[in-house]
Amino acid sequence: MNYTKAQPVFRRGDEIFMKEALRYADFAFRRGEVPVGAVIVRGNEIISRGYNRREFGKNALFHAEISAIDKACKKLGGWRLVGCDMYVTLEPCPMCAGAIINSRIENLYFGAYDLKNGCFGSLMNMAEYPFTSKPFVHGGIMEKECSQKLSEFFAILRKKH
Amino acid sequence: MNYTKAQPVFRRGDEIFMKEALRYADFAFRRGEVPVGAVIVRGNEIISRGYNRREFGKNALFHAEISAIDKACKKLGGWRLVGCDMYVTLEPCPMCAGAIINSRIENLYFGAYDLKNGCFGSLMNMAEYPFTSKPFVHGGIMEKECSQKLSEFFAILRKKH
Repeated sequence: MNYTKAQPVFRRGDEIFMKEALRYADFAFRRGEVPVGAVIVRGNEIISRGYNRREFGKNALFHAEISAIDKACKKLGGWRLVGCDMYVTLEPCPMCAGAIINSRIENLYFGAYDLKNGCFGSLMNMAEYPFTSKPFVHGGIMEKECSQKLSEFFAILRKKH
Repeated sequence: MNYTKAQPVFRRGDEIFMKEALRYADFAFRRGEVPVGAVIVRGNEIISRGYNRREFGKNALFHAEISAIDKACKKLGGWRLVGCDMYVTLEPCPMCAGAIINSRIENLYFGAYDLKNGCFGSLMNMAEYPFTSKPFVHGGIMEKECSQKLSEFFAILRKKH
């Protein structure tokens, strides 16, 4: 595991929640979307889940993290997701990294690193900038499983074309 | 005016569209929200408009730019807003800057600079990173009018508290 910010706080349920995010990534996979899934957790309760459906939904905003944040705000009745953590199978893009910062998510656990678009350590590290609130970032959680799902997807895509 | 990327492309209608964004910022103002408005334009046609309603909507995603991008994707039937430009009264936050990058908006015109959260030149410059697509960024369009609206809002807010 790889920490991009000091003072990481670890919890026992990490694998359980990342497996749930992977299950949601599968929903995207089966619909022909880049397989990314996200879960928002408070304490031991899953607050919301989301998966990438940008192509089918024909909308640039329909990433897994945005979907999960949208549902969590609706469920908790406010824009501050205080005390909430996110598990996502891929390192967030700039939009999702910004949404995680804006919604005050406390801990971010991601699986695979995204060298082309990842904004919590790969292409840039948003956690280095002085935003009012920033998550503690924990990258590489179940990295092998998360990367494998993406590799499988892109291998199928290449065969098709 | 201040260019944060080379090869800026200017259009004659800039003021007309920024005025429309300011009109939408007023909708936010009257509802007690930080007054930010955004307009998406293709050619000379306004495709969509949005304003900040994060408090009233109780949702971290409800910024002016996100609202305008959401509506534009729905109207144009796809996630790529090719040939579209955005006018927004305030320099975008990380989430909105990322959404502008993801949706392939071509030109971004913003009014006031945001020293605390602005991600196209102030706190950081996302246009400097090698994303697949990046907008041409033109900051400081009708800066005085855009800044003034924000100052008025925060002066009222300070009086209330």
